[in-house]
Amino acid sequence: MRIAVDAMGGDHAPDEIIKGVLEARRLLDANDELVLIGVQECIERQLTSDGSGTNSIRIVHAPEIIGMDEAPVEALRKKRKSSIAVMVKMSSHNEVDAVISAGNTGACVAGCQIRMRNLPSVNRPGIAVVLPTFGGPVTMCDVGANIACKPINLHQYAVMACVYSREMLGIKEPRVALMSIGAEDAKGNELVKRTRELLKSDSRLNFIGNLEGNDIFNGVCDVAVCEGFVGNVILKLSEGFADMLFKAIGYELMQESPRLANEFKPLIAKIYKKYDYHEYGGALLLGVNGTAVICHGSSRSRTIKNAILASKKFHTLKINDQISRSLSKASVRPNSE
Amino acid sequence: MRIAVDAMGGDHAPDEIIKGVLEARRLLDANDELVLIGVQECIERQLTSDGSGTNSIRIVHAPEIIGMDEAPVEALRKKRKSSIAVMVKMSSHNEVDAVISAGNTGACVAGCQIRMRNLPSVNRPGIAVVLPTFGGPVTMCDVGANIACKPINLHQYAVMACVYSREMLGIKEPRVALMSIGAEDAKGNELVKRTRELLKSDSRLNFIGNLEGNDIFNGVCDVAVCEGFVGNVILKLSEGFADMLFKAIGYELMQESPRLANEFKPLIAKIYKKYDYHEYGGALLLGVNGTAVICHGSSRSRTIKNAILASKKFHTLKINDQISRSLSKASVRPNSE
Repeated sequence: MRIAVDAMGGDHAPDEIIKGVLEARRLLDANDELVLIGVQECIERQLTSDGSGTNSIRIVHAPEIIGMDEAPVEALRKKRKSSIAVMVKMSSHNEVDAVISAGNTGACVAGCQIRMRNLPSVNRPGIAVVLPTFGGPVTMCDVGANIACKPINLHQYAVMACVYSREMLGIKEPRVALMSIGAEDAKGNELVKRTRELLKSDSRLNFIGNLEGNDIFNGVCDVAVCEGFVGNVILKLSEGFADMLFKAIGYELMQESPRLANEFKPLIAKIYKKYDYHEYGGALLLGVNGTAVICHGSSRSRTIKNAILASKKFHTLKINDQISRSLSKASVRPNSE
Repeated sequence: MRIAVDAMGGDHAPDEIIKGVLEARRLLDANDELVLIGVQECIERQLTSDGSGTNSIRIVHAPEIIGMDEAPVEALRKKRKSSIAVMVKMSSHNEVDAVISAGNTGACVAGCQIRMRNLPSVNRPGIAVVLPTFGGPVTMCDVGANIACKPINLHQYAVMACVYSREMLGIKEPRVALMSIGAEDAKGNELVKRTRELLKSDSRLNFIGNLEGNDIFNGVCDVAVCEGFVGNVILKLSEGFADMLFKAIGYELMQESPRLANEFKPLIAKIYKKYDYHEYGGALLLGVNGTAVICHGSSRSRTIKNAILASKKFHTLKINDQISRSLSKASVRPNSE
């Protein structure tokens, strides 16, 4: 399998990206090929300073860089030689089997959509992230690819996230819930109410109803469906909240007893790792005709390594074929928006 | 001041509600009057069993109860003798100065809107909640009163929440941020983009730009503005996440070292109390012509007590007059939706 990684994307590029690629290299098969895309000089210098040399990794030169804050579509149009543009183009020409980036999310999503196209039955791709919870992993879709969702989009996200949950996480009959602001049928905005009807009428889904914010983490569902704005807020909020709480605990512990604080430290690290969604290796862009993993801008080598392994699993298990089958079976019409 | 409390609303009604009222009674002035509204027999029995007797509290009989899951407007129409209906009616007849309920939120909001009416310059009331964070308290509005927001509504929420933050929390020039999915101007859905323009153009606001989910808790703003669906998800998610994290910490500690777990317990309780928004005593419904506090359905006596004290502060400081003044000065036209 050929996996392309955007060497220039993210807050810690290219160092941590390349480090992650080298970590993954050791875990992949000999015939798997890793391709680093970005400013050749930069990549080579880093590989050399790591002592790894450039033998084991293929480099594809892309002289331009799309900044984290650039307007996605415009940046893609202007910077045709950027790592993201080159990467998605290679995927569309079947020169690589998977693409991975921790760069500008909007540009990645747009690039994948434009170049790789959608799977036949999909209207709009969605980003699926796995949230580790005390009740098990919850696959949430969408977390930011589509902030103008229609009910049909959310229905497709439910179907795709179910396939993901089943195949990637081994959950047999994923319980699907719809993000809302109350458990009752009458609760929620128009989008939620109309989506609810679609999900209810699809007998292939194990739809359990509305989900409230406080229920995501207590094991009531395996798949949570929401539109991209809400999903993105949820994802980032979870991060920020965990950071604050651990900071607060650390602070109180130090006030109370520095000894206790010291004893507690390794435990915090353990819990952090367990409930850190980076462990799952970024987020899959579900619905495009290819394998695309989008990583958080703050990704370090561990996330990149895990993203590479996730992309291999996704590709090997032929998740896209299964999504296409499921969507064609489901009562989901791509053009019935 | 006369404060009415819905004795029948919430998961722990009437016991915890009445307990909270009695706790507040001890902290209020002698000429403050507390009115419990609900099934007289129920209330009297509880007051007697508490040994407090019925002397210190006025009881207003309301034989009907609106369930937590009932459709709000319909329930209000059908159950004219419910505690919520009677309570808001008393407020509209100027028989009480503040109303408090932990019951059906939708019914409370609808009841207040219908009976108490909005302040002259307000199109739609919003629920404001204070989130305690490591960086100080953040006033967030709206958290569920209005899930079909227009930019003008969000602008008014910003102005009202600023008055609240300044007067109730003593924050001099509250920094206002708009909930979105990226810091850049171009990020966010249509509602966010249009609201952003309104907030930017209002020179009386200390508007600092977009806010991402992970930034709410790190002290960058004092006021966070969002539409009710997103706000409600944020509020409930924060609750659920804290619960899960503390559960996870407890679990890991027990695995690791029961001794450490025991030492850690009182600290958890302390942190929990510090970062528990119930401490602020429910949420003010900003924009109605009166004082209305909406409490979480799970409220226990402490929240009810704090809600009563918050309602007194809100009323005494004449926050509504200040809101009216601010809105009439601001470039906010009530009919320019």
